[in-house]
Amino acid sequence: MDHHLDKALRARADAVIPGGMYGHQSTGMLPDDYPQFFSRGRGAHLWDVDGNKYLDFMCAYGPNLFGYGHEAIDAAYVRQLGLGDTLTGPSELIVQLAEALTRTVRHADWAIFCKNGTDATSMALMAARAHTGRKTIIRARGAYHGSAPWCTPRPTGALETDRAYQILCDYNDIASLEAAVAEAGEDLAAIFAAPFKHDAFVDQAEPDPAYAQRARDLCDAAGALLIVDDVRAGFRLSRDCSWSRIGVQPDLSTWGKCIANGHPISALLGSNAARKAAASIYTTGSFWYQAAPMAAALATLTLIRDTDYLDHLERIGQRLATGLGERASASGLGLRVTGPVQMPLFLFDDDPDLRKGFCWSSEMLDRGVYVHPWHNMFMCAAMTDDDIDQALNAAESAFKVLKVKGPTLPPVAKMAFLTASRS
Amino acid sequence: MDHHLDKALRARADAVIPGGMYGHQSTGMLPDDYPQFFSRGRGAHLWDVDGNKYLDFMCAYGPNLFGYGHEAIDAAYVRQLGLGDTLTGPSELIVQLAEALTRTVRHADWAIFCKNGTDATSMALMAARAHTGRKTIIRARGAYHGSAPWCTPRPTGALETDRAYQILCDYNDIASLEAAVAEAGEDLAAIFAAPFKHDAFVDQAEPDPAYAQRARDLCDAAGALLIVDDVRAGFRLSRDCSWSRIGVQPDLSTWGKCIANGHPISALLGSNAARKAAASIYTTGSFWYQAAPMAAALATLTLIRDTDYLDHLERIGQRLATGLGERASASGLGLRVTGPVQMPLFLFDDDPDLRKGFCWSSEMLDRGVYVHPWHNMFMCAAMTDDDIDQALNAAESAFKVLKVKGPTLPPVAKMAFLTASRS
Repeated sequence: MDHHLDKALRARADAVIPGGMYGHQSTGMLPDDYPQFFSRGRGAHLWDVDGNKYLDFMCAYGPNLFGYGHEAIDAAYVRQLGLGDTLTGPSELIVQLAEALTRTVRHADWAIFCKNGTDATSMALMAARAHTGRKTIIRARGAYHGSAPWCTPRPTGALETDRAYQILCDYNDIASLEAAVAEAGEDLAAIFAAPFKHDAFVDQAEPDPAYAQRARDLCDAAGALLIVDDVRAGFRLSRDCSWSRIGVQPDLSTWGKCIANGHPISALLGSNAARKAAASIYTTGSFWYQAAPMAAALATLTLIRDTDYLDHLERIGQRLATGLGERASASGLGLRVTGPVQMPLFLFDDDPDLRKGFCWSSEMLDRGVYVHPWHNMFMCAAMTDDDIDQALNAAESAFKVLKVKGPTLPPVAKMAFLTASRS
Repeated sequence: MDHHLDKALRARADAVIPGGMYGHQSTGMLPDDYPQFFSRGRGAHLWDVDGNKYLDFMCAYGPNLFGYGHEAIDAAYVRQLGLGDTLTGPSELIVQLAEALTRTVRHADWAIFCKNGTDATSMALMAARAHTGRKTIIRARGAYHGSAPWCTPRPTGALETDRAYQILCDYNDIASLEAAVAEAGEDLAAIFAAPFKHDAFVDQAEPDPAYAQRARDLCDAAGALLIVDDVRAGFRLSRDCSWSRIGVQPDLSTWGKCIANGHPISALLGSNAARKAAASIYTTGSFWYQAAPMAAALATLTLIRDTDYLDHLERIGQRLATGLGERASASGLGLRVTGPVQMPLFLFDDDPDLRKGFCWSSEMLDRGVYVHPWHNMFMCAAMTDDDIDQALNAAESAFKVLKVKGPTLPPVAKMAFLTASRS
């Protein structure tokens, strides 16, 4: 697989971008043969700058729900762009979209739109503190709620004070949650919850309904707000807030990623209880009122409402998860496919520094399938049964290579921090 | 002027958006007859949802530099959208854009792209703290650097700890800046500076070159970083960082608003001194790697480089400022037009609660000219001499109305907080 244009671009990037690339789309923690730069996307497929084509199980880390370059969604964007996008005030689409989302998401009575997922979680934090007049929030150890100083997973450049008044608990551990609530005492403003445990590097876990209900009850008893951070998972698991699947409704929920199928918009949704607090905080952004992403979001919501995309994602996701498990077993490898089948994570047994995961992922890439060795993946509605067949065939062949190479794989230097932190 | 569709939309918005609207594009602090919702933009003009047309001196609060719906810029966006926008990695445009910006902005050796202006200023904050291993930043009282908890102008929902390690000084006051630096002592991480004083509600002021140079020297002496926040003013005053006009180069500069003529992208630019620190911080966003806004930014930079837009903005801005002053004087009114002529602010003498400003702005709106009673405005390259004639004719007529009504204007209840805070 040729990567010479990618290599040339990396050299140019090294000169004008710190570290060559930044954030979650840096390949710094991926196998060395993963391309950094892409030229095109269509449906479930990506092309890198050297023209190599991949079946893409990352879906842009979530935004791609209905396929890259979806005609109806992009047409809605372009049509609105021709009328007006970033103007001196919003268009009527902001009202239509807030109406559509509050009809779709059961707990929601109102919406505020923004750009980053972090904008939405930061507003949720402020709204909860404004609502309660209290400071302390509880969140799960290892859960990702964005990259602002208060929540960034790598606190370089952030201060202790940026993370003041936060108590960590363990996801799905009721006793740990209760202990955190007891520690917060009279000062509990909110419990932040991921819709399921989707931390990097470790097995994913579905939410325990008893844990979710306990979080709801503890918030109610304390007069605190329950926040479900659905930025990553929203609309991939449900046509409602993801915890509706287990019968628990939050006060606030945060959304982003796929709500406009890759166009830039995120949202804070809330119930009437939190409306006054939400109106009292001041946050804003230059492009938060853009009309074109709202047109794209309305088109996306139409597809969410009117198509069987969710059944399709579940069915092909299940085929992939089951098929991978069978093929790994047949090759004598222990592979754990965890989390909802629409957002699976693949981890090999006895692979603390991910050398097996890196080897297998590289073999998959070489067979035209882009998987991630330590981050959850994403199914999209444009994936077909033929795509799943391709992925399973590639996996079978890649498992065989891994079985042979496995015992002599060298350590992955760039992932040594994982074993260091666990020892 | 009919506003019945706007009124109907406001009622619907009240049901599904907290407070009916949020952030800087809420009309909550504008005259009651200002429309909240717009349907279209073209060149220098806006249409509200009732079809009323305005010559728009807000330019979307900055993003509109070359005219709404600019053909070449929007075509670049749409063309790239057809190839790929939000993918699993960036396109080569991120490298091209970083190269173009570092060629254009003299102090800059590298770039990081994001979505909100606040993303860029927050990254600058973190990079400065990472670079120095220190905590304290200095910024000017009343200066706007974004809406995150550490800098939001209305701290409801934010904590004291979010604003820890900040010292305020007075813009253009060297003694005040020196006192702040002395107070920071060994802990100075950075001085934040607006390119000129563009605070809301008060006269604007150009930067005193001696103040800017002193900020530079104090940072150098302390090993701290100088940050110019050019989000609002960047490329409207100069084809370089705005302080290049007075010969002072920062270490970091923040950009947004008009760098892609309204398409959603912002940036942190920095010099080599801060490169390592910038690479050490982790911030990211779902849509930070979008290729289409980068294509639009490249098209915008081409216009910035190859057209006489800047001379045009200065010339028509000067015509407007001079013409308004003459017409106000002729009507016996004291009007102060302050700040760079490309970004003017209009305030009337003896108008503490802005009742004169509100009256005159309403009269302007009624004559098809959208001005702002307390926020700086923005000239765009699509404005013609005929547009300036229209604005001056409208102003002359509106001044006459104000002269008659002025002595008996009732207080503006929604702005009473201004007089309360000043008394």
